[in-house]
Amino acid sequence: MQGPVAEGLAGRTVLVVGAHGALGSVLCKRLGEAGVTVVLLGRRLPKLNRLYDALVASGAPTPAIYPLDLEGAGPSDYDQLAAAIEQGCGGLDGIVHVVAEFKGLMAVDSTPAEDWIRSLHVNLTAPVLLTQACLPLLRKSSRADVLVALDDPERVERAFWGGYALAQAGRAAWVRSLGDELENSAVRVTGFRLPPMRSPLRTRAFFTEDAAHLATPEQLAPSVLALMQQVDRPTGQVMALEPERRAA
Amino acid sequence: MQGPVAEGLAGRTVLVVGAHGALGSVLCKRLGEAGVTVVLLGRRLPKLNRLYDALVASGAPTPAIYPLDLEGAGPSDYDQLAAAIEQGCGGLDGIVHVVAEFKGLMAVDSTPAEDWIRSLHVNLTAPVLLTQACLPLLRKSSRADVLVALDDPERVERAFWGGYALAQAGRAAWVRSLGDELENSAVRVTGFRLPPMRSPLRTRAFFTEDAAHLATPEQLAPSVLALMQQVDRPTGQVMALEPERRAA
Repeated sequence: MQGPVAEGLAGRTVLVVGAHGALGSVLCKRLGEAGVTVVLLGRRLPKLNRLYDALVASGAPTPAIYPLDLEGAGPSDYDQLAAAIEQGCGGLDGIVHVVAEFKGLMAVDSTPAEDWIRSLHVNLTAPVLLTQACLPLLRKSSRADVLVALDDPERVERAFWGGYALAQAGRAAWVRSLGDELENSAVRVTGFRLPPMRSPLRTRAFFTEDAAHLATPEQLAPSVLALMQQVDRPTGQVMALEPERRAA
Repeated sequence: MQGPVAEGLAGRTVLVVGAHGALGSVLCKRLGEAGVTVVLLGRRLPKLNRLYDALVASGAPTPAIYPLDLEGAGPSDYDQLAAAIEQGCGGLDGIVHVVAEFKGLMAVDSTPAEDWIRSLHVNLTAPVLLTQACLPLLRKSSRADVLVALDDPERVERAFWGGYALAQAGRAAWVRSLGDELENSAVRVTGFRLPPMRSPLRTRAFFTEDAAHLATPEQLAPSVLALMQQVDRPTGQVMALEPERRAA
C-alpha cells in the first residue's frame, strides 16, 4: 500500500466541541457516516437537536447531545461532562475543538473589556479546561486524538482582531506543549490551520468579499477525518489543512 | 552621532506592572535614575514600600505606589487605576509588563483547573485589560511605549509548562496585533524576549542549573530602557533582549 497508513474510525466515540458551527456540523455528519459515535456539544439546543436528527436519519450510530455554553461553564461542568461521556458512551477516543467565538472586527478603543474576556475564555481557557477534564478518559483509549482548529496568525495577528488573535496563538502553543507532554502516550495532539473558509465567522471579518472562491466546510471536513485516520503521524504538530479535491 | 536616535526619559511617567519582581524592581530603579516618575504596581505592599523608599533615597522623582493583585482585579479596577494615574501623575507615557505568574513545572494530569485559569488570567487577560483601560491616557502622550516581557517559545512550548506557555504565545500575538492597530498613533507596542535570566521563576523551572552564567536583571534592565529611548524603532515588533555588556 502506498501513502500513509490509515485506519477506520468505526466504533470510536468523538466529542465535537462546537458541533453546530459551520465546520462542526459537517464534521459531525462525516464522523457519523464513518461509524463514529459523536458527542454533540454546543450552546444551542435546537441546533443540536436538528443535527442529532440528521445523524440518526443518515444511519449513524446514535449520537449524544450535550448542550453547554462555554462562556459560563467552569471546571465542575467539565468534570460532569467527562463523567456523562464515560457513563453514556463507555469511553472517549477523541475531541475536536471547532468552537470559534468572534463577534467581528472592532477597534481596540471601543472593545468592551467583557469582549476580551469572553474571547479569551471561550476560544482558549474553556477548551483547555474541557480537555483537561477529559484527559483521563482519553488516556484509556488505545489511540485518541485531540484536534484543534486554528486560524492563520498571518491573517489574524492584525489590527481589529482583538482577543480572538491572542486566543488563536495560545491554542497553537497549547497544541505544541500538550503534544510534547503526551508524546509517549496514546493521546495525539494536533492543530489544523484552516484556510479561508466559507462561514459566518469569515463573513464577519471580510464582509465585502466574494465567498465563492473560499473552501467550504464540506471540502475541509474529510481532511479533518483523514488526520484521525492517519496512524503514522507525529503529535504536537500544527499543520495547514487542505481542502479535499474530490469533495463537492 | 552614530547609532540609533535616542532621547532622554526625564519627566515621563511610566507604569511598571510587576514592580517588585526580579526584573521589575531593577527596572524601576533605573527608570527613577533616568528621571522617570514610576508608578509601582504589584501585589505585595511591603515590597512596594521598600522599592518606594529605595527610589526616593536615590533621588528619583517621587514614585507612586499602586498595590493590586491582578488575579482578583477586574475591568473596574483598571479604570480606577487609570483615573488615579491621571489625577496623581497628570498623564502616562508608558507601561512595562513584567509580571510573570509561574508556579513551576507540573504534569498536566495533576495541574488543578484553577492553576490554568490563574496563569492565563494573570499573564495574559489582566495585562490586556489593564492596558486597554490606560490606552486613552497613553494616547494623550506625545510618545508612549507599551513594553511586554516575553519568554522564549522554544523554551516554554514544552511539556509541563502549562498555562504559562499559552499565555506567552498570546502576549506575543497581542504585541503584533495591537502594534498593527496603533501603528499611526504615538503609542508604540514592543515585545522583548528575555534570555535565560537569574530569577526565582527561572529557578522554579531549572532548579538544578548553575545560575552563574545567566544574564542578571541588572544587565537586562538598561536594555529595556534603551528600547524606550530609541526613537526610530517600528511598532508591533517582538525582539530578543540582549544584556548590556557594560553593566555589572
